[in-house]
Amino acid sequence: MAHKFADAGWGDITIAFPLNIREIDEINQLAGKISLNILIDMPEQISALSTSLKHPVGFYIKIDLGYHRAGIEPANTELIERIIGYSKSGQLTFKGFLTHSGNTYQASGKQEIFAIHESAALELSKLKRKYQSEYPGIIVSCGDTPSCSLAEDFSEIDEIRPGNFVFYDLMQLRIGSCKFNEIAAAVVCPVVSVYPKRNEALIYGGAVHLSKEAIINADGSRNYGLVVPFVDGRWQSPMGDDWLVSLSQEHGIFKTESTWAKSLSAGDLVAVIPVHSCLSADLLRSR
Amino acid sequence: MAHKFADAGWGDITIAFPLNIREIDEINQLAGKISLNILIDMPEQISALSTSLKHPVGFYIKIDLGYHRAGIEPANTELIERIIGYSKSGQLTFKGFLTHSGNTYQASGKQEIFAIHESAALELSKLKRKYQSEYPGIIVSCGDTPSCSLAEDFSEIDEIRPGNFVFYDLMQLRIGSCKFNEIAAAVVCPVVSVYPKRNEALIYGGAVHLSKEAIINADGSRNYGLVVPFVDGRWQSPMGDDWLVSLSQEHGIFKTESTWAKSLSAGDLVAVIPVHSCLSADLLRSR
Repeated sequence: MAHKFADAGWGDITIAFPLNIREIDEINQLAGKISLNILIDMPEQISALSTSLKHPVGFYIKIDLGYHRAGIEPANTELIERIIGYSKSGQLTFKGFLTHSGNTYQASGKQEIFAIHESAALELSKLKRKYQSEYPGIIVSCGDTPSCSLAEDFSEIDEIRPGNFVFYDLMQLRIGSCKFNEIAAAVVCPVVSVYPKRNEALIYGGAVHLSKEAIINADGSRNYGLVVPFVDGRWQSPMGDDWLVSLSQEHGIFKTESTWAKSLSAGDLVAVIPVHSCLSADLLRSR
Repeated sequence: MAHKFADAGWGDITIAFPLNIREIDEINQLAGKISLNILIDMPEQISALSTSLKHPVGFYIKIDLGYHRAGIEPANTELIERIIGYSKSGQLTFKGFLTHSGNTYQASGKQEIFAIHESAALELSKLKRKYQSEYPGIIVSCGDTPSCSLAEDFSEIDEIRPGNFVFYDLMQLRIGSCKFNEIAAAVVCPVVSVYPKRNEALIYGGAVHLSKEAIINADGSRNYGLVVPFVDGRWQSPMGDDWLVSLSQEHGIFKTESTWAKSLSAGDLVAVIPVHSCLSADLLRSR
């Protein structure tokens, strides 16, 4: 994907995924064309680079502040300093610290999101202060969409990188990161069949279009997308509690709870607000 | 997809999804080239066709035998007969009855799968006998992979259409439809980072490669794929209970339970047996 952005004229790109050392040839190609930054959370990644890099590359150290997906704990300064050490050699420049507080997706309410954000900002700024006398110009970067949408205080943060708030989606609506009218992605699907006896309808819209990402309803059931009217080329506000109860490869079944949904017939179009717009954007790009 | 098969030389295709009446132009294009069968579970679908069809098309009536995704209940002979009625007009030929017993995916054990299959075969054969004197040559068709893999008696069934048993996957292994060495699809992924303290490793392999389909482990946790060694271009039998505990867009985290998995380092390759090979095949076709 970085190649596509570079070809489209972007000259300063950070690949916000820990370095896959099998991609060193591609890193070299990109670094010869643009200002490239990569992410490191293991000494092995950067040591592999240090012997084979042909052009300057900046690196951020990925910090794990509680999400436990990738990154180094901030207290592990021994590991951090082993990695920073490589900035003294060859083509590598230490750019700073980067985190993704994806644990905000599991937060219950804004106060918990604020608490995660404030704690992350504090830890990042402590790291920055610790190393900036030796490495002036280093920055700290964070980027989960719930924090970036809701928090106000970014005074300790130099850069944000939220991706999902380009579109938002049903999950962000549920978290409280956005309002319905801020959502900018929906999948328009034809109604194929209606089953009045079970208050359900079949759409051509399945896991290959919407992904199997779900949010959990209050009763424990899984919700694969919110179904709303699609009129004159625009999707409308929800008319009721019409949501996808199941998805298989190309079949989507929705529960027709509202009067509007009960009146649908074969051939009508509806819009589905996806649970995760990133996955739907990826799925639909090649169709 | 039917266009691709037709272009590749397939001359007899059944689109096993209830007719999307917005695709009548495409149905006409296909029916002009090949012997095409479609699926009907609503009179509106076939009435829309009957006025606009330019070439002969065969149709099956989709029957719902307990999965409740699509189809007509077999007892609803009034609806069935309204649909069959269209075979007396123009280009439409009634071909028979078709079902998909996807409820076998929720079955606990082979006996329950056999029971679902036998009941489906009985219902289909009753429908066939009821209508075959007036419509000689009609057939009945079923097609879920668990039944087609495990059941022995298909004497009442004229056609099977299982798709998943081309590859099998982790879900079929769990159901008991296949053995490990019958699985024919895996996704080879690089190990990007290892986190010994939490017995986990990061692979470049996420929801955009494997889908968010999961099976539920005995303890209620979600399992997004089984991780096995990949040696000399071949994937191996599982070395332990190494599975993906979480997936996000491009990140996969696996629990490194076995000695083999604990010894992995950045740059190694592993193979992931996907939960649902159909979704992975679709996701990987354009990468």
